[in-house]
Amino acid sequence: MDNFLPSGAAGSDFSLLLPRHYREDVVRFLQQDMPSFDVGAFVVGSTPVKANLLAKTPGILAGMPFFNAVFEELGCEVQWFVTEGCRLDLSSAAEADARGSVPPEDTGDFDATPSHFRGRKKIAEVTGPVCRVLQGERTALNIISRCSGIATQTNHLAAIKQEHGWHGEIAATRKVTPGFRLFEKYAVIVGGGVPHRMTLSDMTMLKDNHCWACGGDIQAMVRKARSVCGFSNKIEVECQSLAEALEAAGAGAEVVMLDNFPAPEAKAAAAKLKEQFPHGLTVEISGGLNEETASEYFSEHVDVLSFGGLTHGYDVLDFSLKVVG
Amino acid sequence: MDNFLPSGAAGSDFSLLLPRHYREDVVRFLQQDMPSFDVGAFVVGSTPVKANLLAKTPGILAGMPFFNAVFEELGCEVQWFVTEGCRLDLSSAAEADARGSVPPEDTGDFDATPSHFRGRKKIAEVTGPVCRVLQGERTALNIISRCSGIATQTNHLAAIKQEHGWHGEIAATRKVTPGFRLFEKYAVIVGGGVPHRMTLSDMTMLKDNHCWACGGDIQAMVRKARSVCGFSNKIEVECQSLAEALEAAGAGAEVVMLDNFPAPEAKAAAAKLKEQFPHGLTVEISGGLNEETASEYFSEHVDVLSFGGLTHGYDVLDFSLKVVG
Amino acid sequence: MDNFLPSGAAGSDFSLLLPRHYREDVVRFLQQDMPSFDVGAFVVGSTPVKANLLAKTPGILAGMPFFNAVFEELGCEVQWFVTEGCRLDLSSAAEADARGSVPPEDTGDFDATPSHFRGRKKIAEVTGPVCRVLQGERTALNIISRCSGIATQTNHLAAIKQEHGWHGEIAATRKVTPGFRLFEKYAVIVGGGVPHRMTLSDMTMLKDNHCWACGGDIQAMVRKARSVCGFSNKIEVECQSLAEALEAAGAGAEVVMLDNFPAPEAKAAAAKLKEQFPHGLTVEISGGLNEETASEYFSEHVDVLSFGGLTHGYDVLDFSLKVVG
Amino acid sequence: MDNFLPSGAAGSDFSLLLPRHYREDVVRFLQQDMPSFDVGAFVVGSTPVKANLLAKTPGILAGMPFFNAVFEELGCEVQWFVTEGCRLDLSSAAEADARGSVPPEDTGDFDATPSHFRGRKKIAEVTGPVCRVLQGERTALNIISRCSGIATQTNHLAAIKQEHGWHGEIAATRKVTPGFRLFEKYAVIVGGGVPHRMTLSDMTMLKDNHCWACGGDIQAMVRKARSVCGFSNKIEVECQSLAEALEAAGAGAEVVMLDNFPAPEAKAAAAKLKEQFPHGLTVEISGGLNEETASEYFSEHVDVLSFGGLTHGYDVLDFSLKVVG
Amino acid sequence: MDNFLPSGAAGSDFSLLLPRHYREDVVRFLQQDMPSFDVGAFVVGSTPVKANLLAKTPGILAGMPFFNAVFEELGCEVQWFVTEGCRLDLSSAAEADARGSVPPEDTGDFDATPSHFRGRKKIAEVTGPVCRVLQGERTALNIISRCSGIATQTNHLAAIKQEHGWHGEIAATRKVTPGFRLFEKYAVIVGGGVPHRMTLSDMTMLKDNHCWACGGDIQAMVRKARSVCGFSNKIEVECQSLAEALEAAGAGAEVVMLDNFPAPEAKAAAAKLKEQFPHGLTVEISGGLNEETASEYFSEHVDVLSFGGLTHGYDVLDFSLKVVG
Amino acid sequence: MDNFLPSGAAGSDFSLLLPRHYREDVVRFLQQDMPSFDVGAFVVGSTPVKANLLAKTPGILAGMPFFNAVFEELGCEVQWFVTEGCRLDLSSAAEADARGSVPPEDTGDFDATPSHFRGRKKIAEVTGPVCRVLQGERTALNIISRCSGIATQTNHLAAIKQEHGWHGEIAATRKVTPGFRLFEKYAVIVGGGVPHRMTLSDMTMLKDNHCWACGGDIQAMVRKARSVCGFSNKIEVECQSLAEALEAAGAGAEVVMLDNFPAPEAKAAAAKLKEQFPHGLTVEISGGLNEETASEYFSEHVDVLSFGGLTHGYDVLDFSLKVVG
Repeated sequence: MDNFLPSGAAGSDFSLLLPRHYREDVVRFLQQDMPSFDVGAFVVGSTPVKANLLAKTPGILAGMPFFNAVFEELGCEVQWFVTEGCRLDLSSAAEADARGSVPPEDTGDFDATPSHFRGRKKIAEVTGPVCRVLQGERTALNIISRCSGIATQTNHLAAIKQEHGWHGEIAATRKVTPGFRLFEKYAVIVGGGVPHRMTLSDMTMLKDNHCWACGGDIQAMVRKARSVCGFSNKIEVECQSLAEALEAAGAGAEVVMLDNFPAPEAKAAAAKLKEQFPHGLTVEISGGLNEETASEYFSEHVDVLSFGGLTHGYDVLDFSLKVVG
Repeated sequence: MDNFLPSGAAGSDFSLLLPRHYREDVVRFLQQDMPSFDVGAFVVGSTPVKANLLAKTPGILAGMPFFNAVFEELGCEVQWFVTEGCRLDLSSAAEADARGSVPPEDTGDFDATPSHFRGRKKIAEVTGPVCRVLQGERTALNIISRCSGIATQTNHLAAIKQEHGWHGEIAATRKVTPGFRLFEKYAVIVGGGVPHRMTLSDMTMLKDNHCWACGGDIQAMVRKARSVCGFSNKIEVECQSLAEALEAAGAGAEVVMLDNFPAPEAKAAAAKLKEQFPHGLTVEISGGLNEETASEYFSEHVDVLSFGGLTHGYDVLDFSLKVVG
Repeated sequence: MDNFLPSGAAGSDFSLLLPRHYREDVVRFLQQDMPSFDVGAFVVGSTPVKANLLAKTPGILAGMPFFNAVFEELGCEVQWFVTEGCRLDLSSAAEADARGSVPPEDTGDFDATPSHFRGRKKIAEVTGPVCRVLQGERTALNIISRCSGIATQTNHLAAIKQEHGWHGEIAATRKVTPGFRLFEKYAVIVGGGVPHRMTLSDMTMLKDNHCWACGGDIQAMVRKARSVCGFSNKIEVECQSLAEALEAAGAGAEVVMLDNFPAPEAKAAAAKLKEQFPHGLTVEISGGLNEETASEYFSEHVDVLSFGGLTHGYDVLDFSLKVVG
Repeated sequence: MDNFLPSGAAGSDFSLLLPRHYREDVVRFLQQDMPSFDVGAFVVGSTPVKANLLAKTPGILAGMPFFNAVFEELGCEVQWFVTEGCRLDLSSAAEADARGSVPPEDTGDFDATPSHFRGRKKIAEVTGPVCRVLQGERTALNIISRCSGIATQTNHLAAIKQEHGWHGEIAATRKVTPGFRLFEKYAVIVGGGVPHRMTLSDMTMLKDNHCWACGGDIQAMVRKARSVCGFSNKIEVECQSLAEALEAAGAGAEVVMLDNFPAPEAKAAAAKLKEQFPHGLTVEISGGLNEETASEYFSEHVDVLSFGGLTHGYDVLDFSLKVVG
Repeated sequence: MDNFLPSGAAGSDFSLLLPRHYREDVVRFLQQDMPSFDVGAFVVGSTPVKANLLAKTPGILAGMPFFNAVFEELGCEVQWFVTEGCRLDLSSAAEADARGSVPPEDTGDFDATPSHFRGRKKIAEVTGPVCRVLQGERTALNIISRCSGIATQTNHLAAIKQEHGWHGEIAATRKVTPGFRLFEKYAVIVGGGVPHRMTLSDMTMLKDNHCWACGGDIQAMVRKARSVCGFSNKIEVECQSLAEALEAAGAGAEVVMLDNFPAPEAKAAAAKLKEQFPHGLTVEISGGLNEETASEYFSEHVDVLSFGGLTHGYDVLDFSLKVVG
Repeated sequence: MDNFLPSGAAGSDFSLLLPRHYREDVVRFLQQDMPSFDVGAFVVGSTPVKANLLAKTPGILAGMPFFNAVFEELGCEVQWFVTEGCRLDLSSAAEADARGSVPPEDTGDFDATPSHFRGRKKIAEVTGPVCRVLQGERTALNIISRCSGIATQTNHLAAIKQEHGWHGEIAATRKVTPGFRLFEKYAVIVGGGVPHRMTLSDMTMLKDNHCWACGGDIQAMVRKARSVCGFSNKIEVECQSLAEALEAAGAGAEVVMLDNFPAPEAKAAAAKLKEQFPHGLTVEISGGLNEETASEYFSEHVDVLSFGGLTHGYDVLDFSLKVVG
């Protein structure tokens, strides 16, 4: 059966976003890890076993559909005791949903004493032939470690935003690991952010280099873009000054990005833009943003803060898989 | 012309290691970034331009062959002013080779005043149709940022090793980003480390889960592995105790790995192992090693220290590409 | 050299829109046409020849980059005497640009008497080994026949629009030939239309089936979509009534589509929508539109008319390739 | 389960002809339609639903195996109430088999009143998660619309042939949509025609350009072809005159094609050819044939009429899919 | 440049038969031989060198286009001193064309004394970076060894045929090495045989299992096949008796195969068949044929002898490549 | 279900070695055999049938997982009456395990009289739709014929080794059929040999051409190799003399290969090498070895004999598949 619906539990709605090709990526990952023979598989044989997935660092879990795909591809089954986007709090039973503020009911079945051993917490169980469980182990862990690291960082920013009551969006950028983009952008969504454009073929972004190449004529640039992309794609212009931003908005750009503006200037410029274009204009701030500086940019006139660091040079969460019988 | 030799300068010997498929990876990366139209390309046109690659953070440069491949694929040319593995020292002219202790002669052509502007340093020049330069920009930067981050961290460990006069190897693990393994392992080599086994099909590693699955009979396990892999593959056994390590070495394993041993115990066990198996046995230490703890494990009896963190949760270096005319 | 810039003449700007993978499509097309030996190639040998591309029916030429790609792939060269998007008027010398109203200067070199023979017109010349010219012939003709058919039909609608002075866009739909989408959408642009969204991953369209599945709660539907796609994607809602359209616009949809509305109702609804949402709302009309009925829907309040027939059940132009020596 | 047998009903024998790779084509079609996220899928969720496939224009149904493949790939199921090749007569209950003259028994279950609503007829039911049904909808409809359009046109010619009692074959050509060839040629068979050669690697066709390249020496050309293709491939020669045709037949060509002959000349030439080569020679007529002119070429000496228009510039049938619960 | 014309000398006409995908096969072969790093390449560096291709066993050379493709793919160049299909006679200068009876003029340049050393003969020179020459060495040799082995064996049978003045064809079968079919069938042609059908999609063969499955009704079987394949494909029936063969020929099969008939019975049956079907019927004999028995089957009524052993369990020729500076 | 565990019986442990991609190879093999329609499949229909796999020549059976994969891919099932690596002794009931000396118990079910008919032995049964059984037949037989041929030859050498009580390994080389390597190396293991390195990326082999390119400085060569491959890969040096071999071993090569040494010299050199390097050095002999000469090289100091002929110019076993109802 080739269906690519998640095999996971009811809560994992985010997986519905995923295009089929994530399964092909997973197959390629597995194949790159085994170009010829696996002597270890021959040694351990194909006895059915159970293996525990243990969380070793706290954070937000992300990547369940990929973890599942690895093992389904190998003929194994995964049973989860947590849901996508939940908070892994190793010190207590509480698992808070990454996108909500209230922890779900303690279901008991994954939080009973035996689920905590050696300071780790059992969050899923993989069953299948031992050789297959071990073939998938490293690839599956490599994926959820990274996805969860990204979701954790994103969620931290989302929490700051919520705390300050800011209305805008925490966005990623195109600073992704080549070949791993889908996995990283997905993790941003699970963490409570938005992916920003996925590729050059989505929202048209006219950046500093584009402006330079067009001799700085923003209006002509936007008009030329619109003539071929039509109404269905947004156009964003990266601006170095308020004047540029006003020109871009006036030319029909749906989004203007204030690039590397200090916080006060950014907020002032955003206010001016919204004054002149009160409807249908989105103001994005980008450049050098991080957890420390983000809140300085929060303003009713700023709609989006984008962070390269969400997918670029990010920390990972630690997990391990232990065969138990 | 389909040759996959590096187009770079004479110093980039490491690229000779690379299999052809890195070019296919690069093509896939570019294609994933542009599934349909690129309106921005249409807007800027195909006028020939020059763009400067600027280094923005200090460290070890790695990934030149990949950067070249991105732009060659797009019909652009790259001219480098530095060499693979050199140290990017943004405060001064000295570029020290990552694997040697002596900085190369200052060639002048990349260190002239104009190469330092706004606190950045020009390290290469890309020329080609403006639309193509911009299509390759993000993918090319994403790759060298990550490779250079890894090389920098590896090189730091290699410097510690050199400082202490330790004879052994700084090794990576299989904790890689799926789909980006080759790029990451390559960067480890550029930084002065060794890649460790690339895949399940290389050196046979019998880890804790394998031992568990075999009922702990290390000797039978090694013999069974040898019966099919033969003389050409090494066999490594991950050991939880000295006793296990002695059994593994006695059974013919070429490498034993002491897993998560505290430094004193690790060094004592290594000494015992080398006493009994003075020839042809390699002793690896792994588990929780980092820049702070590494030197505690240096010993004449320890041959390899492996660090998950080299390719897992690593920092990146910062670069940018600016069209200049 | 793997550059995928067009080899064509200066006027073929549209080709800059194309992603690299059109070349892979072309390679696959050629391979599907020759799974094993080509005995005909063996028979004719590899003598260099010249072949004339003849236009046999009037219309708008589209598909030059693909035609070029077929023959470049086969080691042949193409020289064009016309430009992408020009009008092929077989009865006279005038070649009018499909997107402009004024025919270009008669350059003479493609309109001299010898270029018209047997009621056909020579528009390009292919040179290369005879076996390669013949291997590419059918695939190359199959592509430009279809692209030109689409561009001709689109351009006819664009001319009607221009004649009536309507400000809006002539758009295609997702009713494309599977596997040939890129070629067809590109031809729409060459003809003077816009491609509309390319795939399910572009602008989010919530159609009648989506609404039905969500129990008709348009507001919740739009909010849920926005929570994951964020600011960078537009959201369009297909509406069966003005009430639905007003609800969708109020919920933040950037585009509303009036589905299968008779012309008077469509225009009245559009006017109401623009009255309430004067900024940042796009109104699209779709359903049963064709060359006869299109102008009835022209209105200052209607922004887009979309036509399934542009890429679904379309006529083709006729071309042939004749080896001449 | 990876079997690629049709999941359809007993009558769909034609699907046995299909090579496995049609499933890969279908997967590629789906993937091209969803390069990254599908926000619509996230919005509607994965509730199981039922959707009706409605025929909206009369004609011959073709493409069932492809329609099935789309939805099986997506984890949905299809139940058909009609069979491949049947006539969709929207005004009445009769469904006549496209290749027979007698309509099958009215089975009742697809012709009951509720199957006709709003002038459409329900011909199949798709069940599955709503997000998957909607993801497959457009691709599946795009395929059967085109296949059914081709089958309808082919069947019309087959009916004319049957009416005139002509013994010969209605054949397609290689004027196919690149990438969609298999689907189109299959539809020709369903409609009652024959596919003609599929590729350059099947029957060797020596056309006008080949003859030109060989200096017009048909005998040498046929002999050279035979020396490598041997007995297992047929050789066809496209001829501009009876003299050429006689030379080709004399040289051992199994098929001669009379290219663009007016009907009387074609029939006279065919008679002459059959007089001299009464056994083992096939006479094909091609060039400018259509529904109006076909019957003028019917003759006991003509074996094949080939029509470019069957797969080139063809009309489509109209279908829609409606989620009903 | 992506042209796939042979880079070889004027005589290598057979390469014109080859479909483009042989180059993709060659790329895959090379990639399978180097899934990650090539340490040997790093060790030797990229100095330009020259390497001699030495023939070590006599026979017919085949596979030049593939050998060239390996090295072109790696950025090396090949210069040949012999031509495809020539006889490698290590004891003397004479190189006889495999398909002709007269040896070509001794050109001198490949037969001078230095081309014979240590009992080997230099037949080509490869130049390129030493690391690339060594990366291609084994794959290139593996291909020409096998192709030349097949061509040698085929040519031996062709020589026997010529000696006996038999008019028929020496044919291969579908008993090929999976994945290497194109290479093997090509070598049969170079050796002077014919490839027989390449795949299940070429000439329709109805074998014993097909007859069994159809209840032995040969006439119905042939008619059913013809109804879908039409005039452009031949139909062959494998027959266990003369009666079956007569029935098959009467039903319109263009080829009948007498399966495992002893020589006298085969020739008698063939004579009877030709008596009744003097035109347009091909008689093939298959089953247990080899170099010893082939000539017993030669007869004016037998058209084809097919040999599984040409591509199944065949000997190889021996070559080596030596870097010389 | 996509699991790639063997569907075969308990004894087929070797299949656990296989990487997933053998299934993709099998799919490609099948697709190459059917680029478009299979008229034969249409003719026979999809009635479920049973077919017997018959062994026709004695030897060692190898390739069961591949045979299974072919038919599983086609929706058929295979039931085996023998196990991978067993000896097919067509004259009697005894099936001896290729790797053991004692024949297993006669299980009766595959050796009853009906399993021997016409001098052949039934070893498996394939069940499935008749069209699918026939589509897989040739590909499946082509694979097991070749694998079994290799296993038989390897096993013969292993038997000679066992007979002489030699401790070493019978190894294959990289002289494999391009694209079929995995299948051939696997068969070597089944026959009781070892595969030697699979690719250029496994054990680093520094051969005569490498030495030549490095100016003969073996020590520098080994050191340079080690600096990048590190501890996890072995290094082997091909040596033309004892002096070279001593230098290589002294430089840290784990394996030395004595190339083309006559038997006495080889054994003497091996003894000397082991005297100086009693631990951790492997001595391989290669060059011109075959069944006749192998035993002359047996010695306590020789560890590996490698035979190009195992996978280069090998004989095949004969099997057939007969539909029986």
